[in-house]
Amino acid sequence: MQHFRGGLDHWDPAITDGFAKDRPVILFDKAGVASSSGETPRTVEAMADHAADFVNALGLSQLDLLGFSLGGYVAQVFTFRHPNVVRRLMLVGTRPRGGEPPTDPNYRPCATSTDPATGEGTLEAFLYLFFSPSPRGQAAGRAFWERRHRRENDIDRPSSPQTMAAQSAAITDWRQVRGERFAELKSITRPTLVVNGSKDVMVPTINSFSLSQHIPNAQLIIYPDSGHGSLFQYPDLFLSHARMFLEGNNHKSMSRGHCHD
Amino acid sequence: MQHFRGGLDHWDPAITDGFAKDRPVILFDKAGVASSSGETPRTVEAMADHAADFVNALGLSQLDLLGFSLGGYVAQVFTFRHPNVVRRLMLVGTRPRGGEPPTDPNYRPCATSTDPATGEGTLEAFLYLFFSPSPRGQAAGRAFWERRHRRENDIDRPSSPQTMAAQSAAITDWRQVRGERFAELKSITRPTLVVNGSKDVMVPTINSFSLSQHIPNAQLIIYPDSGHGSLFQYPDLFLSHARMFLEGNNHKSMSRGHCHD
Repeated sequence: MQHFRGGLDHWDPAITDGFAKDRPVILFDKAGVASSSGETPRTVEAMADHAADFVNALGLSQLDLLGFSLGGYVAQVFTFRHPNVVRRLMLVGTRPRGGEPPTDPNYRPCATSTDPATGEGTLEAFLYLFFSPSPRGQAAGRAFWERRHRRENDIDRPSSPQTMAAQSAAITDWRQVRGERFAELKSITRPTLVVNGSKDVMVPTINSFSLSQHIPNAQLIIYPDSGHGSLFQYPDLFLSHARMFLEGNNHKSMSRGHCHD
Repeated sequence: MQHFRGGLDHWDPAITDGFAKDRPVILFDKAGVASSSGETPRTVEAMADHAADFVNALGLSQLDLLGFSLGGYVAQVFTFRHPNVVRRLMLVGTRPRGGEPPTDPNYRPCATSTDPATGEGTLEAFLYLFFSPSPRGQAAGRAFWERRHRRENDIDRPSSPQTMAAQSAAITDWRQVRGERFAELKSITRPTLVVNGSKDVMVPTINSFSLSQHIPNAQLIIYPDSGHGSLFQYPDLFLSHARMFLEGNNHKSMSRGHCHD
């Protein structure tokens, strides 16, 4: 489940192809997003219901779910509502409902920047928002940008202004606490991997710590000298960690330790 | 570098034997601790100087360093003072100088408990302080306790009351901020892996987040449903993560991404 304004081609092929080596990988544009028809709804809950319709239409009874940023909000709500469908959950660069908002004044203009030539966000804004300012972080960002644009045919469309406005409304709504802050996270009993970069200016890194503290069976990994796009900065390392998590090495290790409960 | 009161036999053989499969592993009791002669000093700095003497005596010019709990305090000071000797640093269940102290009222009586039959801490206190209270956490703690006591001959001695008192003084001193809080962590430029359990009642887990936020090249991993002894709860998973870290997969991944700086 993809980030704000993002479509099918905004995933890192190093990661999606890596997962696809030994499992089916399903990417999709939710209603109204990029090449998908329909209208993008203005709440995370409605997006999660669309995702459930999609999963039902495919006839899937169980899946591993990766949600990145806004996609991570949707993945959380999907898991609240369909706990038995989710086998393992990965939440990358995301936050719980009512989590800490960004404090960087450049956040809003960068997040809504549009390159008139492509209809998408500019490279400059993307490097600022998704990667650390260090030479290493910026170089990793340019390397990802190159991978992201390798596809030559059958390219997904940029998301529309309607999608941007509706997703913005959903993000604003997600900032509001409802009931006891973070209490709903206790209901996520599936093994969960929470990942972020050390200095995320868009979804502050402390949100990942909060997710891991409140989801009962969560492992947290934070990568050095990186931002919101930590998975794009360390694709091989992320893939190794994610595959170890999906293969359930933590449970294997416990049974070797004679723990049978 | 071992925890408060701990000696050679208090490491997890699943971990030390695992590391030893493809690298030399050096465990040692610092001055006064367990079977080592001499007197245990009352500051972390003096412990780090003893460690440096030991490293010099062995003629080692570079090493990977794992510090657990109090051993993590010593490992930090060792790294401040001998940055070129440390190739990669692992800080487990530990905190920076002036970090957050424990708030659990059971901490002190448990940490100083002594079983008259063995001269060491009791199993009950150990399970409380090092493992989560869940059935899974407690079972993992008992499984570790069994591994820890497998050695039948040439067993290390329990640490003396002098060591306990001196190490307690060093821990109390380490609680004091000196100069700008956490500023010294910026000088650790070596790749660092920070690890803890999600609910450490002895060295609160937020300290590991702080370490990873202030050490420039730090990766953070926090394990679910676990406490201070997270590495003992998930020995195989910890070993996999630590070996990936030591083998430097993060740098490999970057060079594959065409990042040459």
